[in-house]
Amino acid sequence: MKVLVFGAGQLVQMMYLAAAPLGVDVKAVDVNSRDILHPVSKQKLEMTLDYALSDADVITAEFEHVPEDLLALAGETGKFHPNAKSILTGADRVREKACLDIANIPNAPYKIIKHIDALDDAVQALGQRIIFKASRDGYDGYGQWRMMIPEDVDDIRIAFASLDLQTVPIVAEKMIDFEREISIIGARTSDGKVSCFDIAENLHYQGQLHVSVAPASNISDSLKQKAHYIFETLANSLEYIGVLAVEMFQVGDELLVNEIAPRVHNSGHWTQNGAETCQFEQHIRACLNFPLGSPQTNKITAMINIIGCTSFSRDLISIPGCHLHWYGKEVREKRKMGHINVTANSYFELSEKLSKLLTFLPEEYFPKLAGEIRRLKAL
Amino acid sequence: MKVLVFGAGQLVQMMYLAAAPLGVDVKAVDVNSRDILHPVSKQKLEMTLDYALSDADVITAEFEHVPEDLLALAGETGKFHPNAKSILTGADRVREKACLDIANIPNAPYKIIKHIDALDDAVQALGQRIIFKASRDGYDGYGQWRMMIPEDVDDIRIAFASLDLQTVPIVAEKMIDFEREISIIGARTSDGKVSCFDIAENLHYQGQLHVSVAPASNISDSLKQKAHYIFETLANSLEYIGVLAVEMFQVGDELLVNEIAPRVHNSGHWTQNGAETCQFEQHIRACLNFPLGSPQTNKITAMINIIGCTSFSRDLISIPGCHLHWYGKEVREKRKMGHINVTANSYFELSEKLSKLLTFLPEEYFPKLAGEIRRLKAL
Repeated sequence: MKVLVFGAGQLVQMMYLAAAPLGVDVKAVDVNSRDILHPVSKQKLEMTLDYALSDADVITAEFEHVPEDLLALAGETGKFHPNAKSILTGADRVREKACLDIANIPNAPYKIIKHIDALDDAVQALGQRIIFKASRDGYDGYGQWRMMIPEDVDDIRIAFASLDLQTVPIVAEKMIDFEREISIIGARTSDGKVSCFDIAENLHYQGQLHVSVAPASNISDSLKQKAHYIFETLANSLEYIGVLAVEMFQVGDELLVNEIAPRVHNSGHWTQNGAETCQFEQHIRACLNFPLGSPQTNKITAMINIIGCTSFSRDLISIPGCHLHWYGKEVREKRKMGHINVTANSYFELSEKLSKLLTFLPEEYFPKLAGEIRRLKAL
Repeated sequence: MKVLVFGAGQLVQMMYLAAAPLGVDVKAVDVNSRDILHPVSKQKLEMTLDYALSDADVITAEFEHVPEDLLALAGETGKFHPNAKSILTGADRVREKACLDIANIPNAPYKIIKHIDALDDAVQALGQRIIFKASRDGYDGYGQWRMMIPEDVDDIRIAFASLDLQTVPIVAEKMIDFEREISIIGARTSDGKVSCFDIAENLHYQGQLHVSVAPASNISDSLKQKAHYIFETLANSLEYIGVLAVEMFQVGDELLVNEIAPRVHNSGHWTQNGAETCQFEQHIRACLNFPLGSPQTNKITAMINIIGCTSFSRDLISIPGCHLHWYGKEVREKRKMGHINVTANSYFELSEKLSKLLTFLPEEYFPKLAGEIRRLKAL
């Protein structure tokens, strides 16, 4: 069987490695050059995009920012999973918010700003602390802006003045005083079967995921049920096929959905060494209509992203249960270079292993790790 | 880092898949055509053998039958592991027996037959039931012969008459009434560090491995110590670097070495899903002088070979903990097409899962499975 994947980064690489044992071949599409690449070596394969599209049994994506013409081409084949709707929902915060509202899934209060005049109304409705997000990424001048004090609104007004808000609206979202960020990752099959991995607890720094620990500690049954309900409701409403990730804020015993990622997800990398089936294999299984694998957790696992850094001792793999996953990319600031999965039988054991790991790492690139070690030790 | 592997079968394929996350590239050498191949796609890579040999950081082999000129070429580079001596020992039963005797490791009583006149002496010395093995494989007319009753010797004498016993002697070995066959697989590093996986219990049928279960049941501490002593003694005496497999017969509380395989081994495939580090990654680590990974067993695991058969339902992967490893080869009689690893938390649970697995498989291709299920259930 053959799977073609839009995108040529680490996610398709890990899909390839997980699919090969099933006898499934995975190829990558560079969505800019339209070249077909080997997912690991990134070597150009002698084949046109048209041929690759027709030759594949299934087409999928490693990210939601698939150019619309490619999405249309893939859609025409009838072989694209999860489906265009899900990709578009993940790629556009206006659609994402609408999807959550229609499914009646709690999320942070928000306003859509399509004209600079709507800014004051949004501020009035959402209160003192607001995060403004471009509805779609990758547009010049767009990004995220934070209003922490009322006076910030003046800078934001200036920034918005030069933007085409009609074409790319802004989602203004009330900042949530959440206790923590968690994510639930699972798969849905074409016949509506849903299977989730254990919930992960995620630590971000400057907008990037740095550390995930799964299973998340102190997840009550009620919280777990809520997370599963949210996942299943969203997956069903999107008629989703494949692996889906849902990021949530926990506020007391409530969950607010922060983001829907229609793909395998960084906070699910722990499954490679901690779960009976990894998210990459699970996505391939779901897309090809194979039976899903067991999502059972075998080990408590921490996933540590290696971001913008290559200067660490490879000897860290001497730590028992420490697994390096290296992407083979050229180093750039803030670029995800690889990740480390560390498995253990208890949170305490995990904290001990992470303490040892930290001795191999330059701490400035891993700003969330020391705190997480302390937290895990105290559990 | 780059590793070049002599051989282009499933073992180098699985090495490639295990090495990629470490940022290590693996290429395969077809020892017949001398082409350099991608280990998974088997696509020919545009590079000469000379270039590949000089470009590699390390050269190793997936089998012991490496043509001698290649072994010499690799040896000259100073980058070949485990080393030529170990490969030659694994490839030649006369050398293998000498290696065992020099290291004082128990093995089945034997005689070397270099001339037809030595046959009667061998029979006299070894008793009623003897297995005769060509010292090296792959020679026309050579193979294995069994003497089960004294009269069989006449047929054997006729067979031997046409052979060049001076060039390829025969090892006559007393047949052992063993209780079971087990194997110990581990790695040795350049600085002499040795690390073994749990012992596997192996079921053969018509000379081929069909089922392995690890950890082997009912292994006393004394037996475990003997196996580890044998492994370490042999690995040290061969100055071995990489993963080594030692097959043994258990007779009461004694172990007789049956075979030394200077490579990753079929009876170690269970480590892919049952151990913290798999044998393929461990071999790559040892060869590249990386720290070894933890050999710890995470799950009791059965490895079932799929031999000469493609007609089974792929739905077997619906069984929790059931992992397919497919080699992507054209089917041939007696050819290893893939294997299935089944993980469980107890022997009983394993027997239940294997019972379910058997419902997906054509039993005639899996003649050892039903009996093994009964045995595991009764443990």
